[in-house]
Amino acid sequence: MKTISTEQLKKWYRDHQDRIMKDFFTFLSFPSISTDPKHENDSRKCALWVSEYLTHIGLQAEIWETPGLPVVFASHLKAGPNRPTVLIYHHYDVQPVDPLELWHSDPFVPVVKKNQVYARGAVDNKGQCFFSLTALKAIFEMAESLDINIKVFIEGEEESGGRGTAVAIQQKKDMLKADHLLVIDFDIPGPGVPGITLGMRGLVAVDVECANSSIDLHSGVHGGVALNPNRALASVLGQIWDANGKVAIPHFYDDVKTLSKEHLSFVDMSFDKQQYEHSFGVKAYSNEQGCSVRESNWLRPTVEINGMWGGYTGAGFKTVIPSKAHAKISCRLVPDQDPEKIAQALSAFLKEKAPEGIKISVDLHSGAPAYRTSFDSPIVKTAALAYEEIFGKPCRYMLCGGSVPIVVDLAAATGADVAMIGMGLADDDIHAPNEHFGLDRLELGYLTVARILGRLSSS
Amino acid sequence: MKTISTEQLKKWYRDHQDRIMKDFFTFLSFPSISTDPKHENDSRKCALWVSEYLTHIGLQAEIWETPGLPVVFASHLKAGPNRPTVLIYHHYDVQPVDPLELWHSDPFVPVVKKNQVYARGAVDNKGQCFFSLTALKAIFEMAESLDINIKVFIEGEEESGGRGTAVAIQQKKDMLKADHLLVIDFDIPGPGVPGITLGMRGLVAVDVECANSSIDLHSGVHGGVALNPNRALASVLGQIWDANGKVAIPHFYDDVKTLSKEHLSFVDMSFDKQQYEHSFGVKAYSNEQGCSVRESNWLRPTVEINGMWGGYTGAGFKTVIPSKAHAKISCRLVPDQDPEKIAQALSAFLKEKAPEGIKISVDLHSGAPAYRTSFDSPIVKTAALAYEEIFGKPCRYMLCGGSVPIVVDLAAATGADVAMIGMGLADDDIHAPNEHFGLDRLELGYLTVARILGRLSSS
Repeated sequence: MKTISTEQLKKWYRDHQDRIMKDFFTFLSFPSISTDPKHENDSRKCALWVSEYLTHIGLQAEIWETPGLPVVFASHLKAGPNRPTVLIYHHYDVQPVDPLELWHSDPFVPVVKKNQVYARGAVDNKGQCFFSLTALKAIFEMAESLDINIKVFIEGEEESGGRGTAVAIQQKKDMLKADHLLVIDFDIPGPGVPGITLGMRGLVAVDVECANSSIDLHSGVHGGVALNPNRALASVLGQIWDANGKVAIPHFYDDVKTLSKEHLSFVDMSFDKQQYEHSFGVKAYSNEQGCSVRESNWLRPTVEINGMWGGYTGAGFKTVIPSKAHAKISCRLVPDQDPEKIAQALSAFLKEKAPEGIKISVDLHSGAPAYRTSFDSPIVKTAALAYEEIFGKPCRYMLCGGSVPIVVDLAAATGADVAMIGMGLADDDIHAPNEHFGLDRLELGYLTVARILGRLSSS
Repeated sequence: MKTISTEQLKKWYRDHQDRIMKDFFTFLSFPSISTDPKHENDSRKCALWVSEYLTHIGLQAEIWETPGLPVVFASHLKAGPNRPTVLIYHHYDVQPVDPLELWHSDPFVPVVKKNQVYARGAVDNKGQCFFSLTALKAIFEMAESLDINIKVFIEGEEESGGRGTAVAIQQKKDMLKADHLLVIDFDIPGPGVPGITLGMRGLVAVDVECANSSIDLHSGVHGGVALNPNRALASVLGQIWDANGKVAIPHFYDDVKTLSKEHLSFVDMSFDKQQYEHSFGVKAYSNEQGCSVRESNWLRPTVEINGMWGGYTGAGFKTVIPSKAHAKISCRLVPDQDPEKIAQALSAFLKEKAPEGIKISVDLHSGAPAYRTSFDSPIVKTAALAYEEIFGKPCRYMLCGGSVPIVVDLAAATGADVAMIGMGLADDDIHAPNEHFGLDRLELGYLTVARILGRLSSS
């Protein structure tokens, strides 16, 4: 294709701004919460909308049914088998919205305040997805022909750890082959600072139930008799970490692989505590003794209690000894930890620590290992050049504490080199009330993706 | 009054059975959940219904407004100042009904199955209150004149620890003077076994908030950086008890008074673990090392986590580090522990154990000290004789692990000797789903109360 300049791209964006915002807001209005079965139909409507959008751009779009929520797949392969193929990954599902009362506006009725769009999914991942779609739309409108094959893979289960997508990847492996894989679900290091993510942690999650009596009991009449599952659970959970903040589960760190000095020197390990506290109000840190915050966040595995509940949690007071208490626990993993092995170690630990007579049941969710991309692949280099062109600054390299479990599967299925990029900022409040995305970054994302595709096309 | 025989009482009950059940079910149908402000109006409707019922029986009833929910007070003082006065205590409020999904029928639409009435309040305390009202109704219908003055005090805040009732007691002290106080909110030791309660534990409760970040955070992106309040809270709560099951809060046991050997020999300290496990499915016990279950339940103070929650607790998974975690904690107290002092000790302990940077806030609810009645007062003896007459078995003497905080205030205000009686059974599931009361015990309660009044009247 004829190279489309940044100036042309900017003009096209200005000329189509109203349409872009209108379509973006439509995309954001679907409550495609994948973890909640009540929203399955909303997710399906969202997938349909995305596939129609891709068709409208000029790609061949299809919806792949899976044992879970569908994948939207689209391709444009007219450059032919001698030209490179790039696969772009996104997800159309979003996190739940609770606590709803902390939102300043309806999470599914986007509003713009101070140049920020507020909505669930504004960044993660509908915002990032939409600037990609806009880049494709601009290129398809402006280029007479494309010298690169394009595939788009937009899943619906990223936030729920659902494995329908993984099944689809196995089944459609042949259609997914690519040279380059762009996973666009990541952050930049700061406003105006370009950055590429070279690795992320894995994830494994379990549901824990801690039970004693067959029914809830009066805490006076039974206090001193029946052991309270809240007490048992708090005691067991409190033992997960030792006094140095290290995870006390036997064999938890056995397979942890350290990053080579050479690769470590490549990565920007800086962390601004003052800025972090300003953004998030955090005063208590969880890094292991002897590890910096960044090391604990990027290079070390962690355990988090994502949810914990038992007994009466409403207004006023109810003097109850509940029959059960519950926790949702997840572990973030680093290379070469095996999710299954870690979940088993966690499960065994919780059961072993259960007080006599207390029954602890652990329900394992499937997990994903950590992932590190090749630090010097062509797609990483191309993406870095595009970022530097658009931002006018050198690109930094990061790791990520979070997980995009599908990347491992997708990297294997496509056989592609991977670049993990995006336009998120740490204080966009993803997964939290009032998630928001800067409209400036919507345009920067559009420009950067368009220029990556332009560079791949002319290479 | 002319002594009314047990046979006459039984006949009257048979003759009025349909009416009794109809009125009882109406009483049970008010969702008078005092702890939940949403139900204030339901509580007020219930109070009005009770006062009209007392008027209908023939007492002079009035509703006392308080800073909280109203007290229903009624009296019949025609026996004159030279005759004794008995004050009967009940409460018309009930516990919340959650978890609602575990109820087999609507908690406020009573149903009878296998001679048991299922409803919230079926026992605690509407069932017990209603057999008292029925005893009064029968006596007022059958007796030509009464040789005893009767006062009835039915409050609406027993389950919420609200202090409106305490204010009313202070303000109306002069109207409450009595010789005998019957607090009818207690259990018998087993089916067909009569028993009187000689003491109960006190109560103090606190709400705990454990906070770090200003917003919820993504547990991958922030895991290893921000300390999770769920983890901090679990760790702090887990430290409340030592390895021997003793409360580790400094000064917690300082003022605990032991029961004299003489009084201890009076009390039935037996505990049938097999029966208990059969009734409640309990396999894990919480008695302190070196104390029997009964000792821990009746003679030792305990701490319970009545509620605990933080993060995502819905379907599926949400990988979140919540900004806050919460707990509701109550302590059961024995003589001579001071509720305020214990709450302060608990609060100081929780704050001291908070990890660096974590903010723990403790909100104190007002409490009530423990209470022990005189072990050989006339009213206890009279009640024991009535029980033995109705049940045909020797009366046992118990303590109670629970609390009826108002008794302390009411005993002081009335100047009366106290008997704590009732017809509850340990497995009636009060405070739990499917609370139920045997119709046989509704009649036994009616007979016993009527015979206590008959005996007082003829004494």
